[in-house]
Amino acid sequence: MGTKFVVVGGDAAGLSAAGKAKRDALDTDVVVFERGDWASYGACGLPYYVEGRIAALSDLQVLDPRKIIEDRGIDLRRHHEVTSIDREAGTVAVDGDDGRYRESYDELLLATGGSATLPDVPGRNLTGVFSIRSLEAGRALKHYIAPHDAPPSPRAPTGTAQRLLTHLAERDPEAVAVVGANKIGVELAEAFVGRGLDVHVFDEAPRVLPSFGADVAGMVEDHLREAGLDLLLETPVTGFRGSNGRISGVETADGVVPVDAVVADVGVEPNVDLATAAGIDCGPTGAIATDEYGLTNDPNVYAAGDCAEKRHLLTGEPVHWPFALAANRAGRAIGRTLAGRPTPVGGIVGTQVMKALDLQVARTGIVDHEAARTAGFDPISALITTITRAHYYPGWSRMVVHATADADSGRLLGANMVGEEGTAHRINSVATALAAEMTVTDVGSLDYGYAPPFGPVWDPVLGVAKVLDEKLGRISEPA
Amino acid sequence: MGTKFVVVGGDAAGLSAAGKAKRDALDTDVVVFERGDWASYGACGLPYYVEGRIAALSDLQVLDPRKIIEDRGIDLRRHHEVTSIDREAGTVAVDGDDGRYRESYDELLLATGGSATLPDVPGRNLTGVFSIRSLEAGRALKHYIAPHDAPPSPRAPTGTAQRLLTHLAERDPEAVAVVGANKIGVELAEAFVGRGLDVHVFDEAPRVLPSFGADVAGMVEDHLREAGLDLLLETPVTGFRGSNGRISGVETADGVVPVDAVVADVGVEPNVDLATAAGIDCGPTGAIATDEYGLTNDPNVYAAGDCAEKRHLLTGEPVHWPFALAANRAGRAIGRTLAGRPTPVGGIVGTQVMKALDLQVARTGIVDHEAARTAGFDPISALITTITRAHYYPGWSRMVVHATADADSGRLLGANMVGEEGTAHRINSVATALAAEMTVTDVGSLDYGYAPPFGPVWDPVLGVAKVLDEKLGRISEPA
Repeated sequence: MGTKFVVVGGDAAGLSAAGKAKRDALDTDVVVFERGDWASYGACGLPYYVEGRIAALSDLQVLDPRKIIEDRGIDLRRHHEVTSIDREAGTVAVDGDDGRYRESYDELLLATGGSATLPDVPGRNLTGVFSIRSLEAGRALKHYIAPHDAPPSPRAPTGTAQRLLTHLAERDPEAVAVVGANKIGVELAEAFVGRGLDVHVFDEAPRVLPSFGADVAGMVEDHLREAGLDLLLETPVTGFRGSNGRISGVETADGVVPVDAVVADVGVEPNVDLATAAGIDCGPTGAIATDEYGLTNDPNVYAAGDCAEKRHLLTGEPVHWPFALAANRAGRAIGRTLAGRPTPVGGIVGTQVMKALDLQVARTGIVDHEAARTAGFDPISALITTITRAHYYPGWSRMVVHATADADSGRLLGANMVGEEGTAHRINSVATALAAEMTVTDVGSLDYGYAPPFGPVWDPVLGVAKVLDEKLGRISEPA
Repeated sequence: MGTKFVVVGGDAAGLSAAGKAKRDALDTDVVVFERGDWASYGACGLPYYVEGRIAALSDLQVLDPRKIIEDRGIDLRRHHEVTSIDREAGTVAVDGDDGRYRESYDELLLATGGSATLPDVPGRNLTGVFSIRSLEAGRALKHYIAPHDAPPSPRAPTGTAQRLLTHLAERDPEAVAVVGANKIGVELAEAFVGRGLDVHVFDEAPRVLPSFGADVAGMVEDHLREAGLDLLLETPVTGFRGSNGRISGVETADGVVPVDAVVADVGVEPNVDLATAAGIDCGPTGAIATDEYGLTNDPNVYAAGDCAEKRHLLTGEPVHWPFALAANRAGRAIGRTLAGRPTPVGGIVGTQVMKALDLQVARTGIVDHEAARTAGFDPISALITTITRAHYYPGWSRMVVHATADADSGRLLGANMVGEEGTAHRINSVATALAAEMTVTDVGSLDYGYAPPFGPVWDPVLGVAKVLDEKLGRISEPA
């Protein structure tokens, strides 16, 4: 008889682990508990669902729950919440559609995900103040801003969904606020612009998209403003104003901006209550601490996905990195390890890409000097403005590439870039160079492809490495 | 007083070296001899000029000759042909607008480029049979197929240009043949389709784009045929038929296909006559042999660009790799070396990208099993069909990715891919992994960016590495 593998959480990390363990070790019994209605979904697509590019929430589903059960042989139990873990007995307590019971495990994976953080200001519980970390929250938001385009939730398990009921038959919103000019904030701002709404974006930071680096923010800000967005930077939100329990305005030191809806996703917190109640340790980031195989302080309990820490390959430090690929990869590695082939979950270098209207914005590694110094590096940066195609090929546009290196070792530390085309995939070559610990000299001499429709002869990544190489050469020359 | 650096050839390699040497060592006297009218031009743009996307030949110029002279301080002498080298005396013989003379050098760079190879069959000298390795040949071709769109050459130094004069006032061509379904052939076929011509493409090979790997050819062939191209594969051309000295048809074993013009660029030969006459050694590829700094067997004579060999980083063998980036890089490195900072010219891994109508085709490294075995590897491959965006994001299309690894070491050897978007820049991340000698396990665990408009969660490069990793895992398992 095989082992019994129990997974808490039926999204990226949980189902990747379940699928891989079952595929590679057929005699494993795999049970997945998911407290919600949805399993295996692409939450990253929510802004496009809100915008209307994607019609149905079910389009975001990666795998049909029935297929997970029937084709993959995974015992997926939706609407089942794991409420506690008894590590000594090797059981979890489950609260499900079919009552409360205990389920035993040989190996346990915690893939409980993360939750959106709302700003800690008065009025955050008003109707019309949203976060969209879950599919149901996305549905509620879409219904709120476009009631004729999205049906209300068939199940209404959350406060958000209940709140929207009070809004039915009200007028369509005209103005919305996004609090937090971060990735999800800018993606949602784009969605609202696409729906013809007036959009006000608030952030206390001086630049948009702080995680993408200040050096490319200017081009993004110009682009967003040209599209009609009202960007209120260095403008902390001090509260939300309401009328009859519904949002009516966003309050700052400069006054109140009237709005009909707010999305205020200012961060992601790892869901660790289940783990900590059972004595599973968290690390310095607040997420569950794991070793390189995803194992917690209990040798039979793994953690992966947005609830668990990852290791940053450049700093060696644990980080909270709540993104889809890292979750999928860690889940798959744990499944493979359980099937008998020990596989590290892999570190991250911090690669992110996003679409901001007509721009592609990308970053990887360490781009910020303060962060580089904290990690023990001596940072030096270069910024180039180049073009996306050969200068003679019609349709080229401007591209800004910024990169940071360690002046001591010459090692490339990171890059961030923005342009209308060709940054989303180019960043991956930098991510590869970071994993290989290449110097800027190494990167500048890479053999990249060239064709006039796709870039200049010296690819922008080579171009910025070349400039850094020259800068470092001048530093190292005797006076 | 500084040294005197003489360069033969005023295109990518020559002017990169000249510019870098002058910039980094101001007291160097730099003289560049260019036998033609053009210096510093993007010959890679010729297909788009022929198509009409690029109006004027001068648009392909990277740097204005006057600026090269005045702003960069380089003594560029166009219409000056170097006819011999006296290595003992340290001089070159020059034949120029201003007569014949000798010029002394301390250091010499041969950047004499390459020449198009026409197929060795009867009729190749007929009027209307073209190659387009040079700007003037491109102009002649465009004038021939679209006489109202391109003026005849202001100077007519070549046979090609003379031949076109006989064609003036003739009818516009309706059907053209491309002999060689290689990169330049397919780019030109696209240009001819863009001009509304009937296009017949001949190749003796069974698939198009042999250097890009057979595994992606099917998708390209379907696409070209859908666009109306007549692809005649496994069809060697046995001769060209003429009428009154002008091309009238392409002859194969199956008969004669009537055409009004032919482009037959079946290869590039390095221009080495000047070098070999002076006792400079060529390597096994027929191009000038150099060491890692671009130095020939004479310690004062360098060679770079399409006339010189490069080293392939995976095989360690010399190769003839007549492409723009390698030429630019080698030139720049030599300029830097001469300015006092020894800089290797860098090897190549064989990265190529191209546009084929609506497709992007890309390759790098070793993808072919026979080539892998010749280089001492034990090849294993995987092919995946994936999509260019998240499955729920509108506008996705199919993408085919093939990769080859060494079964002994697990090292990734190469990849080739094709799709409507996202392959031209993705290939560079594979090129980076090849330079870093990564295994498929290493590549599969890279931290790449993900956003729904730009790809699936597992980037196609990670996806194909994952499949190869699984294949290798099964091989290494005990029976």
